[in-house]
Amino acid sequence: MSTTPDIIPAVVADIDPAVVQAALAEMAAILGQDRVLPGDGDGEFRDPYQPVEWLAFAAAGVVQPDTAEQVQQIVRIAAAHGVPVWAQGQGRNNGYGGAAPRVSGGITINFRRMNRVLEIDEELGYALIEPGVSFQELYEAVEAAGANLMVSVPDLGWGSMGGNQQDNGLTYLPYGKDWRNICGLEVVTADGELLRTGMGAMAGNQSWNLYRRSLGPTIEPLFFQGNFGVVTKLGVWLMPKPEVITHVHIDVKRDEDLIPLVDTLRRLRLDGTIDGVPCILNTLLIASTIAPRAHWYEPEEGVIPDEAIDEIAERIGIGRWHLRLALYGDRPVNEHNLAKIEREFGAIPDARIRSATTGPEEWAELPDPSDRVYAGVPNQDWTTMAGWRGGEHGGHMSFTPVAPLTGRKVYELQMWLKARFERNGLDHTADLIVVNERSLCSVAGITFDIDDEEATADGYRVMQELVREAGGIGYGEYRAHLHFMDLAQEQFGFGDHAYRRFVERIKDAVDPQGILSPGRHGIWPAAMRGGR
Amino acid sequence: MSTTPDIIPAVVADIDPAVVQAALAEMAAILGQDRVLPGDGDGEFRDPYQPVEWLAFAAAGVVQPDTAEQVQQIVRIAAAHGVPVWAQGQGRNNGYGGAAPRVSGGITINFRRMNRVLEIDEELGYALIEPGVSFQELYEAVEAAGANLMVSVPDLGWGSMGGNQQDNGLTYLPYGKDWRNICGLEVVTADGELLRTGMGAMAGNQSWNLYRRSLGPTIEPLFFQGNFGVVTKLGVWLMPKPEVITHVHIDVKRDEDLIPLVDTLRRLRLDGTIDGVPCILNTLLIASTIAPRAHWYEPEEGVIPDEAIDEIAERIGIGRWHLRLALYGDRPVNEHNLAKIEREFGAIPDARIRSATTGPEEWAELPDPSDRVYAGVPNQDWTTMAGWRGGEHGGHMSFTPVAPLTGRKVYELQMWLKARFERNGLDHTADLIVVNERSLCSVAGITFDIDDEEATADGYRVMQELVREAGGIGYGEYRAHLHFMDLAQEQFGFGDHAYRRFVERIKDAVDPQGILSPGRHGIWPAAMRGGR
Repeated sequence: MSTTPDIIPAVVADIDPAVVQAALAEMAAILGQDRVLPGDGDGEFRDPYQPVEWLAFAAAGVVQPDTAEQVQQIVRIAAAHGVPVWAQGQGRNNGYGGAAPRVSGGITINFRRMNRVLEIDEELGYALIEPGVSFQELYEAVEAAGANLMVSVPDLGWGSMGGNQQDNGLTYLPYGKDWRNICGLEVVTADGELLRTGMGAMAGNQSWNLYRRSLGPTIEPLFFQGNFGVVTKLGVWLMPKPEVITHVHIDVKRDEDLIPLVDTLRRLRLDGTIDGVPCILNTLLIASTIAPRAHWYEPEEGVIPDEAIDEIAERIGIGRWHLRLALYGDRPVNEHNLAKIEREFGAIPDARIRSATTGPEEWAELPDPSDRVYAGVPNQDWTTMAGWRGGEHGGHMSFTPVAPLTGRKVYELQMWLKARFERNGLDHTADLIVVNERSLCSVAGITFDIDDEEATADGYRVMQELVREAGGIGYGEYRAHLHFMDLAQEQFGFGDHAYRRFVERIKDAVDPQGILSPGRHGIWPAAMRGGR
Repeated sequence: MSTTPDIIPAVVADIDPAVVQAALAEMAAILGQDRVLPGDGDGEFRDPYQPVEWLAFAAAGVVQPDTAEQVQQIVRIAAAHGVPVWAQGQGRNNGYGGAAPRVSGGITINFRRMNRVLEIDEELGYALIEPGVSFQELYEAVEAAGANLMVSVPDLGWGSMGGNQQDNGLTYLPYGKDWRNICGLEVVTADGELLRTGMGAMAGNQSWNLYRRSLGPTIEPLFFQGNFGVVTKLGVWLMPKPEVITHVHIDVKRDEDLIPLVDTLRRLRLDGTIDGVPCILNTLLIASTIAPRAHWYEPEEGVIPDEAIDEIAERIGIGRWHLRLALYGDRPVNEHNLAKIEREFGAIPDARIRSATTGPEEWAELPDPSDRVYAGVPNQDWTTMAGWRGGEHGGHMSFTPVAPLTGRKVYELQMWLKARFERNGLDHTADLIVVNERSLCSVAGITFDIDDEEATADGYRVMQELVREAGGIGYGEYRAHLHFMDLAQEQFGFGDHAYRRFVERIKDAVDPQGILSPGRHGIWPAAMRGGR
């Protein structure tokens, strides 16, 4: 058996395993034995992209509650025994650590059985859901209800909306912009009590899922990327289906064409021509959604050189950068906005612009899976991406700095990343997700064959270097991979880490035992902060 | 001298006044004596709508710092002496308690001298401002810079943008929707340290004012209606000026026409036809913006009866309800959306629709002050409102429940309010501010002549009754008047006040001495919670 490479900052709960088993037994008495899985559930609730031999980040057991009351009981039992719990949704989060917990030896709360859509309100455009409801399930429930509403979905539809959103996960429709998806949470706090955010803090208040703030300080965003409670219900805003969607794909030929591409996009986002969450993908990212690396380039060693990238672009019929976006609206408005898009982006030399306008009845059958995503139809087609190296045994990790939405800065960051990827023998894939009118999340994927322990460890080493070096030049991640949460958080050092110290004070106050998801995004309870 | 009526829950800081004076003297040594005003600054920093004789809510002194460093020093001195401080912007907040602090005998930090616009970035559409910058000053700075940008402004332009936004104050342009105005805060914490939110937690990160979340839990909304820090810088998003603005005014004749008015508005908001923050005003609210009550109705006693309201509406040329909104966009898009608005609202019997489309060069000169507001041009014209009773000695308080955006619910709430206002001898004014696609803030003004102590006290009694009774039927305020913060917060009792208890745990953790704005929106430090 291999040992865990020292690149991985594993933490094991400082608790007698017999105590954890006693807690699991008490939970089984409440949930039923079939809802308590030993260990990581036969590998189901671990990071699927980590070599099994490493054994880092392993739960002692997984519990699958059915109701919020059961979650309260689970948390109370965990508190009584001092056992850390790690809450998740479906347990996907692939590329960021999957279903694995930050601290080994604790108990994972998995919400696959709490997957009910409790309410769909077509008039006011929202749903109330449980934390395990997948995007696919919510989509199906909305369609089955015949509601003229659509869900903002990510590239892969199998994950839970609650889990995704609590990680600040990105989705692509207009409500994905600056995370307008969620409004109103029900949360189990560390003492096992129930709390509701916003207007929901008043019993019987009908604006819980309609109004975004509290009377008094707004605490809802504390529960996203936080570890102050376990979310048991979420309000989800759903957008009415527009008359038509116009799917737009724009290709530019040269790397440096990214500059006018981004600047034009920013102008048309700021002036309201383009809503939602456009993406800019590079050639190799697009290639990875179609087939593994070997399909495109024969030599296994070395990075794919620029000439070969151009050939791949040619084969696919794209450019060095590909912008995808969608317009949602009345047909004449979309036509006006499309003409503006064609005029403005058309000014970039050699730019190619494709578009298609479709109505609701066509969306589920759109041939391009990414067009289906922009039409709110979840799918799994892009799982291919993970197999860039290793095929079915392929894995990936994402490095995700936030950048200002100006052509020059985005271009410089991409060239900086490309140089570092290639220096380390990695192909540079880029997925620039334009989350609002002023910034984007730059997702760069480190891919490896998980059967190749050495290559995987190398990937981890590159990630560590990227997080640290980007931090040194003022770029921070929007979301961190489980194994690099501490390092990513460490980069946010303004005022001698004033942010982290402030948040950890909150942590100690609302969860004094430190049992809820300790270490999530670099926030630790007092007992686990070590020297800090 | 009168005594403070028992309706007012006054709190005096439990501290030797000599100690407060010693703290003020230390602050004067740093700021200069001219920046430390004794008492409430000759009445400048009290609630202007409260009879002077009541003497409730009075500061022992007002300090006016010039820099964030001075704010740090002020907070450190206050902490050393255990003196509570109350932070504000310009010190307006009229209708919600004005410049007065919740706790008497402490020190008010007023930001009128920190009114610098530090940066305007036209390309990315934002500014970085100090907390005392008024809407008027920001507007002038943007115009002076020649930047093609506009500020989302409220009805009155004299208040500070920072103070207004930290109270969740409402503004009317598209960035006023769900408070998209602010992105990125610098905050002095209770121990006198500097903290920056979001990406600003990383020194040198260029996305501080561009990206809305943190890596880790997002804490920025804690500082709105909160008392966990003193904000010293704010990032403000500015929208590019559109090609044209189309101002739309819609009148409906009968009270019950509010039902289709709201339902039509909701549909056109949800489908994206109407952006920004529309308002629905009743006849008497509109009348109050034009002239005091005596101008419209002769008898001083009793409420204005329905027949007289219809006559007033006739005189002004409006209906029972008046909807104002604006469209921002390219001319053909506005034309398309206006036609849709005319068609949909035109289906309401007797509805009258006026509209006008103007370009940027016309906005500063628009004759209707409310059209200027929707064009981002701040003004003071509506100060008339406060003089409904008492003219220049008129005062008002606002009661502001949040309601779901459905015609039936909004209508029922308004009739419920009207009955309670009239039962108490008050005219019912209504200003329904449609803050997003699914809810509105219903602002009802209680007006009185502040020279008439008995009438003013009656107004306070009505407010108390409204907060309590509305809470009983599931309606909570979005923002509370200083004197009713505890009562308004008390209504949010879900889970045995789980929200307030959670927030007060945070309060005790980040401000263990309880010196920062104690009691703001009903959140108190441990030492001042009394029996709770």
